[in-house]
Amino acid sequence: MLGRLRRLALLAEGCFTPENAKTAVGVLRYRAAEVAAVIDSTSAGRSAAECVGLAPEVPVVADLAGAAAAGADALLLGIAPQGGDLPAAWRGLVLDALRRGWDVLSGLHAFLADDPELAAAARGSGARLIDVRRPPAERRVGTAEAAETAALVTLTVGTDCNVGKMTAALEIVRALNRRGASAAFVATGQTGIFIADRGVAVDAVPADFVAGAVEALVLEAARAADHVLVEGQGSLFHPGYSGVTLGLMHGAAPAALILCHQASRDRIRLSGSPRPGALIPALARVREAYERAAGWVRPARVVGVAINTLGLSDVAARSACDRAADELRIPAVDPVRFDAAPLAEALERERQSARLLLDPLS
Amino acid sequence: MLGRLRRLALLAEGCFTPENAKTAVGVLRYRAAEVAAVIDSTSAGRSAAECVGLAPEVPVVADLAGAAAAGADALLLGIAPQGGDLPAAWRGLVLDALRRGWDVLSGLHAFLADDPELAAAARGSGARLIDVRRPPAERRVGTAEAAETAALVTLTVGTDCNVGKMTAALEIVRALNRRGASAAFVATGQTGIFIADRGVAVDAVPADFVAGAVEALVLEAARAADHVLVEGQGSLFHPGYSGVTLGLMHGAAPAALILCHQASRDRIRLSGSPRPGALIPALARVREAYERAAGWVRPARVVGVAINTLGLSDVAARSACDRAADELRIPAVDPVRFDAAPLAEALERERQSARLLLDPLS
Repeated sequence: MLGRLRRLALLAEGCFTPENAKTAVGVLRYRAAEVAAVIDSTSAGRSAAECVGLAPEVPVVADLAGAAAAGADALLLGIAPQGGDLPAAWRGLVLDALRRGWDVLSGLHAFLADDPELAAAARGSGARLIDVRRPPAERRVGTAEAAETAALVTLTVGTDCNVGKMTAALEIVRALNRRGASAAFVATGQTGIFIADRGVAVDAVPADFVAGAVEALVLEAARAADHVLVEGQGSLFHPGYSGVTLGLMHGAAPAALILCHQASRDRIRLSGSPRPGALIPALARVREAYERAAGWVRPARVVGVAINTLGLSDVAARSACDRAADELRIPAVDPVRFDAAPLAEALERERQSARLLLDPLS
Repeated sequence: MLGRLRRLALLAEGCFTPENAKTAVGVLRYRAAEVAAVIDSTSAGRSAAECVGLAPEVPVVADLAGAAAAGADALLLGIAPQGGDLPAAWRGLVLDALRRGWDVLSGLHAFLADDPELAAAARGSGARLIDVRRPPAERRVGTAEAAETAALVTLTVGTDCNVGKMTAALEIVRALNRRGASAAFVATGQTGIFIADRGVAVDAVPADFVAGAVEALVLEAARAADHVLVEGQGSLFHPGYSGVTLGLMHGAAPAALILCHQASRDRIRLSGSPRPGALIPALARVREAYERAAGWVRPARVVGVAINTLGLSDVAARSACDRAADELRIPAVDPVRFDAAPLAEALERERQSARLLLDPLS
């Protein structure tokens, strides 16, 4: 992972649940073979499967010593605290890992390699501090060049943050590859980068260069694939993150959108605020907003819905998908609980009809 | 300026024109008394008035020695090169200024104070390196709290970059103050910060924190004013900068918008790209896009249009304003060439009607 294979200890202290340890859960879902243990002293002794329903063989341990006993040789910070600083309570643990010679992988906004004490500890043991949120050195301004690729560019967009945009993109890539189509995933957030071993955490890029950074990623991915699935971020309806969402959208210049929604959520989640978030509009209104906003730079169509049915019964989950499909008249599935194939098929149809449009005799 | 009064030399080498030296022109327009000279060897010997129609008493000189002879004791980088790095050709000049003990004020994306050679030169002479684009240390995520201020928050929005959003906001603040209303200007870009001596260059803020940074500025300004005029950035229709625009908009959570347009521009300007930008849509469509996008967080209305008539005859300028007013059925003026009063009046009416709505008996 990010340079070499490691046996990871995922730090998820005090919050190893599907809702709260987004990064740890993502890594467990897609790179479980590289995870030796999860660190959460409040769940120690259980398994990852008991806590988050994934990776039955991965134990939850109380501390670094427990992770070492389970075979770990690197530490990955598996949760992103509000504000983005390294919590004081974690500093000792990170220092301990570095002194053991463990690489430390972080998606915090505060870069560990810029911390003199941590940098010195890393130098002392030869360990690496890997800050995946550090923006690229290139300062590129977007020009909508990604609209001109031959590949079908698809962006996952959401009713809110943390509803499953990365997971939907990854599952659709898998489903397309299973069908024999060539599909590439473009990571735009810390968890996606841990999974894909590349990408840019656009939320940490200086605002002027978000679109340009995504454009560069999409152009590169499109050279080797027929489908480019771009991980979306935030939501046009989130007062804190909507700018990230639009910059990412106009940089990727997608032709197709997959709308992602968590069935159990009715309000925008304003983390760290005592104020309640606004009600999430009806899916039809959300679709209209995304299609309109995309169209300011390049027309795009919502071709499918990914419903995150976390916490619902199978019956309720199926019914939530059916309601969305009825409302929007396009395929709607939970790509994790059920199957991403209907979304992959919708994108294949979209790509074929776009090709026919470009070259009617082919 | 930014800490103490200075006698500024504005660096605008090779590009001291109204179109290209936006920062220099802004400082000359609003803080001419602090400018000793403009440096542009290609226009040396002329006056600022001959080059950009402003500040008759300010000479254009060929170099630092000329600026020193004119009384300068500080250097302000008055143009923003594509990419945001310090051009190699300027390094000697900046070093020379620092060695003279001159403070250097910069709005580059590359921070001068982080450059070891420049930082050493500044330490050696006691000069200050002031990077106005450096983001605030606080990492605040926006929550639409600015929507709850008693002040009327107004954002200037544009059909494209560099059409006059900062100037419109500053002229409206002046016009409101002349009418006896209390109005505050919130600077969100480098030139605005040079003029207002405060603010945040949102285009350099990590994307996650753009809205939060603006929210903090608006809440502070609203404590002491009835009108808060927020300087807009970019355009929803610009593929590189639209994310900055939307993040700024949702952070400021304005109730009123002033739509800014340059009459002579018909395409989005993609600086640094060989590709032509897209056609700018009709003003009515632009208005609809901004009102819709604002409404995803807080409903807002475009209450006036600021037309930048640079390069047009007086007759053509008047006619461009009249056409916009006819098309949108709201006041439309060039606030520089003509008068910002109609826009100030429209905002005063908007504020009065909002107050009546809140408290019908007042």
